[in-house]
Amino acid sequence: MKVGIIMGSKSDWPTMQHAAEMLDQLGVSYETKVVSAHRTPHLLAEYAESAKDRGIKVIIAGAGGAAHLPGMTAAFTPLPVLGVPVQSKALSGQDSLLSIVQMPKGIAVGTLAIGTAGAANAGLLAAQILATHDEKVMEAIETFRTNQTDTILNNPNPQD
Amino acid sequence: MKVGIIMGSKSDWPTMQHAAEMLDQLGVSYETKVVSAHRTPHLLAEYAESAKDRGIKVIIAGAGGAAHLPGMTAAFTPLPVLGVPVQSKALSGQDSLLSIVQMPKGIAVGTLAIGTAGAANAGLLAAQILATHDEKVMEAIETFRTNQTDTILNNPNPQD
Amino acid sequence: MKVGIIMGSKSDWPTMQHAAEMLDQLGVSYETKVVSAHRTPHLLAEYAESAKDRGIKVIIAGAGGAAHLPGMTAAFTPLPVLGVPVQSKALSGQDSLLSIVQMPKGIAVGTLAIGTAGAANAGLLAAQILATHDEKVMEAIETFRTNQTDTILNNPNPQD
Amino acid sequence: MKVGIIMGSKSDWPTMQHAAEMLDQLGVSYETKVVSAHRTPHLLAEYAESAKDRGIKVIIAGAGGAAHLPGMTAAFTPLPVLGVPVQSKALSGQDSLLSIVQMPKGIAVGTLAIGTAGAANAGLLAAQILATHDEKVMEAIETFRTNQTDTILNNPNPQD
Amino acid sequence: MKVGIIMGSKSDWPTMQHAAEMLDQLGVSYETKVVSAHRTPHLLAEYAESAKDRGIKVIIAGAGGAAHLPGMTAAFTPLPVLGVPVQSKALSGQDSLLSIVQMPKGIAVGTLAIGTAGAANAGLLAAQILATHDEKVMEAIETFRTNQTDTILNNPNPQD
Amino acid sequence: MKVGIIMGSKSDWPTMQHAAEMLDQLGVSYETKVVSAHRTPHLLAEYAESAKDRGIKVIIAGAGGAAHLPGMTAAFTPLPVLGVPVQSKALSGQDSLLSIVQMPKGIAVGTLAIGTAGAANAGLLAAQILATHDEKVMEAIETFRTNQTDTILNNPNPQD
Amino acid sequence: MKVGIIMGSKSDWPTMQHAAEMLDQLGVSYETKVVSAHRTPHLLAEYAESAKDRGIKVIIAGAGGAAHLPGMTAAFTPLPVLGVPVQSKALSGQDSLLSIVQMPKGIAVGTLAIGTAGAANAGLLAAQILATHDEKVMEAIETFRTNQTDTILNNPNPQD
Amino acid sequence: MKVGIIMGSKSDWPTMQHAAEMLDQLGVSYETKVVSAHRTPHLLAEYAESAKDRGIKVIIAGAGGAAHLPGMTAAFTPLPVLGVPVQSKALSGQDSLLSIVQMPKGIAVGTLAIGTAGAANAGLLAAQILATHDEKVMEAIETFRTNQTDTILNNPNPQD
Repeated sequence: MKVGIIMGSKSDWPTMQHAAEMLDQLGVSYETKVVSAHRTPHLLAEYAESAKDRGIKVIIAGAGGAAHLPGMTAAFTPLPVLGVPVQSKALSGQDSLLSIVQMPKGIAVGTLAIGTAGAANAGLLAAQILATHDEKVMEAIETFRTNQTDTILNNPNPQD
Repeated sequence: MKVGIIMGSKSDWPTMQHAAEMLDQLGVSYETKVVSAHRTPHLLAEYAESAKDRGIKVIIAGAGGAAHLPGMTAAFTPLPVLGVPVQSKALSGQDSLLSIVQMPKGIAVGTLAIGTAGAANAGLLAAQILATHDEKVMEAIETFRTNQTDTILNNPNPQD
Repeated sequence: MKVGIIMGSKSDWPTMQHAAEMLDQLGVSYETKVVSAHRTPHLLAEYAESAKDRGIKVIIAGAGGAAHLPGMTAAFTPLPVLGVPVQSKALSGQDSLLSIVQMPKGIAVGTLAIGTAGAANAGLLAAQILATHDEKVMEAIETFRTNQTDTILNNPNPQD
Repeated sequence: MKVGIIMGSKSDWPTMQHAAEMLDQLGVSYETKVVSAHRTPHLLAEYAESAKDRGIKVIIAGAGGAAHLPGMTAAFTPLPVLGVPVQSKALSGQDSLLSIVQMPKGIAVGTLAIGTAGAANAGLLAAQILATHDEKVMEAIETFRTNQTDTILNNPNPQD
Repeated sequence: MKVGIIMGSKSDWPTMQHAAEMLDQLGVSYETKVVSAHRTPHLLAEYAESAKDRGIKVIIAGAGGAAHLPGMTAAFTPLPVLGVPVQSKALSGQDSLLSIVQMPKGIAVGTLAIGTAGAANAGLLAAQILATHDEKVMEAIETFRTNQTDTILNNPNPQD
Repeated sequence: MKVGIIMGSKSDWPTMQHAAEMLDQLGVSYETKVVSAHRTPHLLAEYAESAKDRGIKVIIAGAGGAAHLPGMTAAFTPLPVLGVPVQSKALSGQDSLLSIVQMPKGIAVGTLAIGTAGAANAGLLAAQILATHDEKVMEAIETFRTNQTDTILNNPNPQD
Repeated sequence: MKVGIIMGSKSDWPTMQHAAEMLDQLGVSYETKVVSAHRTPHLLAEYAESAKDRGIKVIIAGAGGAAHLPGMTAAFTPLPVLGVPVQSKALSGQDSLLSIVQMPKGIAVGTLAIGTAGAANAGLLAAQILATHDEKVMEAIETFRTNQTDTILNNPNPQD
Repeated sequence: MKVGIIMGSKSDWPTMQHAAEMLDQLGVSYETKVVSAHRTPHLLAEYAESAKDRGIKVIIAGAGGAAHLPGMTAAFTPLPVLGVPVQSKALSGQDSLLSIVQMPKGIAVGTLAIGTAGAANAGLLAAQILATHDEKVMEAIETFRTNQTDTILNNPNPQD
């Protein structure tokens, strides 16, 4: 497994599955797990601290509201951590976004967009990180990019 | 020590000292410590997990930006945790406030106002919590309340 | 009755019942009442001023929009007051949250999250406050916390 | 006294004096007083409930943060109440504005702009209300309006 | 007609009818008209400038988005103008609110809450303004207030 | 004069002069005038209605707070109107921006950024509009664009 | 073709068709195309750089979220560019609006309202720009404006 | 050079130098360059498209306001791109943050906090990405992390 996808609750899966699908599409192996910063803090510490030795290269963490999972994961591992703000009910993910992105100097989280687009892009960015040292993943990314460009070039008529 | 006052950084002290001053004024003993959720996550776990056995009754936690300290403290202890959003530079504490108050069901943080007024009120609310079972603290609170009422009643002229 | 749950309108009950349900789950007795800061200000004064003598230890107050109920309750009683911002129609509870949390120095409200999660956590935090001097409630809280941790640990697969 | 100007704290006077100055300019009598919703709730009830019998026709109430003074004043009197959101430190009066303007159906506050312009306009609107039945005040308002129009018409060059 | 109710578009009527209903309930006569600041600026000028001579005492103006109707009405008449921010589609009335309330010094609009509660309260506040010189309206307001208080006092159980 | 630059107050000149300076730089003639939507509504109507016949091709209108000048100008003229949100005190121009940009269907304002950058770009966009039928202005714009590109290309070292 | 209407995705067409419909109504020719700043950056450069020589006078660009299309189009052409913030899912177009309007000095985008009203007004403003040198388009605009005024004048009763 | 640090303007250097300093501290080589998405779009395309072949592994892009640089860089290269929202004048970087983070599915930017903390963390995250395949950088990161932990552990007294 190269990528760990964790989330604060099962209810985050409809969002976070877009990260998994992107990694599937790019041929990158991953694992998925519910790890709650608030309800299972010891599991979080254990998961994050052991990830590097288990061969994980990048961790994607998604959470909503007072979303502490990405930042706390980054506190427990030197691996790059990508954060996905899940769209919350009352504040539409504005709380999730600020809770994840506004990290203090010294512990970093690379934050993606709110919701499913952000989750898909977390998968993509994780693959891009791996691709800096994996030509095969780089090729898959180039193909993905060419395809999405061609989809527009081949049918640029908005009224179709 | 009845109350633990913790904060994510020394730079939070000019805010958090208002909690300490309020507890001084109300005759409640407390301890103060820098505990960073991001830079010292193990210290945080240890501090929060041992607090109850050390006799602490309430924990006040202040932090700014992606403020994870109050929520993570609450994850590690069944004691009541009060959160103080420290005023941040770019977003004036809006990020701190949402990161602290928007906790998911199951782990609670009683959140006060952004900045020094919130810190002072965290001290006051901690004392109010103790006062539910401590007549002496209740008397100190009643005196504090009467005094602040009388200050206005005795001089209600805004132009003085 | 150890806890008073009040709200500005019957329409707040679908939110505030989550506070009641949490207290039920933790074995804490409570009363519920509609008390409007704006439409029944004398009732509010009377309710808050008599609460302590009636044995109430903590008051949970929920309101939406220009939510003055929690702060005004705190003005009339030295008991700890917890505020629940009810999700409002136009502004999704952003108005409720700021109206409750941004209290000036001297009168404190411990504020929870917007909506049902905040209401449930108000019940939990009220119990945590009582538990500082009630071992039985503390045990119920510990059990609640263990259960919610185990729910994840026993089934951490998000795709189940 | 036709108009009552109240405010939550002496620190609101630099804002609220602009209401007083406008009333001076329009020849309307007024009184000023510090009345805090949170620190002097009984004084507030007493002030608001007695205002009508004392001959007050309009009440202007200014407050900042979780600004409950205007709405609570309106809860205690059938007189028209005008609210001035005082510019707060962290949130620049966004909290004050929402706490004042978002009143529920049944108790109304006519809200003006944040800060000194709002305070001046509260004085002006109070005078406009009186002027619906006072020709002399109406004339003073017409003169004020003509003057501010002429100030521009007589010197419309922005570079002067 | 004592009160003029105007709005920028027919689509504002579902909101603004709550102002009319409140005035009906309080026995205050009114007229209703679509007057658009942007599409019928001359009609607006004419309506506002003639209102006082036609016996109108208070104007209620409702609009959404870049809501210029209340402020422009106030520019053309010395009568008190009350503004109702209609809930807009994308920004839920935050644009309407700021466009109405943030008037510069010299032209005032008394602003009510976003949406139907604000419209109803605009009717109520208009009546309160008239009641400063009309005992019969004052009595209707007092009855309205007593009724809404009694509705709660007679049935304060939120679970009913 | 090809461009009219108007603003709600002399205090807007430090912002709006950047529009004038840009037009100077691009060799486009213009006039400047204080025209307040609220304090001089008749002047506004007259100015906007006569602009086309006076040979004006584009109007730039700047205002702050409840900024009604751009939208009301557009209500009185079929000429293209560009709006500049002046940075306001309490809300930093967020009110100005929403008051200008959120126009309803049927009356359009082309809105630029808050503050001096927006004012300069209003001058630039006015020139671009004229340039669609004026080769000389188009050349001046092309030169301006080439120069600002070259400034970077010739010295891309951020540490110089 | 006088006007180019481009958008970042086919999903923007339900919004952007309102620009096309307005141009149809005003008798202005146009072309429509999907051009994505992010997925087809070379197509964007090519489209924008060739637009002037192909006879395009104004470009309307619509996009949502981190909406870079309008600003990047303006970077590649000296033609006037109008931006339409498409309403996004999580943030209702607040992100789209700020991404489009807050351009730095030197590259301008005339920004319209969020959503369909903004798209329609982009069509209208494009026509107004052309009308500065095309009497026939000016007449169509005058007719459009007269009609929308008359629609209200002929039926100003909101309750019809 | 392993990391490219680019920014939209020289005025972004006081922010972006914190990225450079972090990379210096971690022993990672980098280059710095002003590349404006709006003023030098061809340079941007060229820089981003050639980066991979020049051996760059990660690009850090900082910009303020309608910040298009990070997203457009990501459009032109498959390398991982990290975005730093520079604190803007009127909106304190809220515009920068949303313009950078809210990228659509298919082109990703890993976004850091607003301002200097975000710039420093962009440097740190770039190093963490490199460290997934560079033991020496990983060691430097581990040392950096241990040091910042020890700084607190060795002196946790906030009042020192």
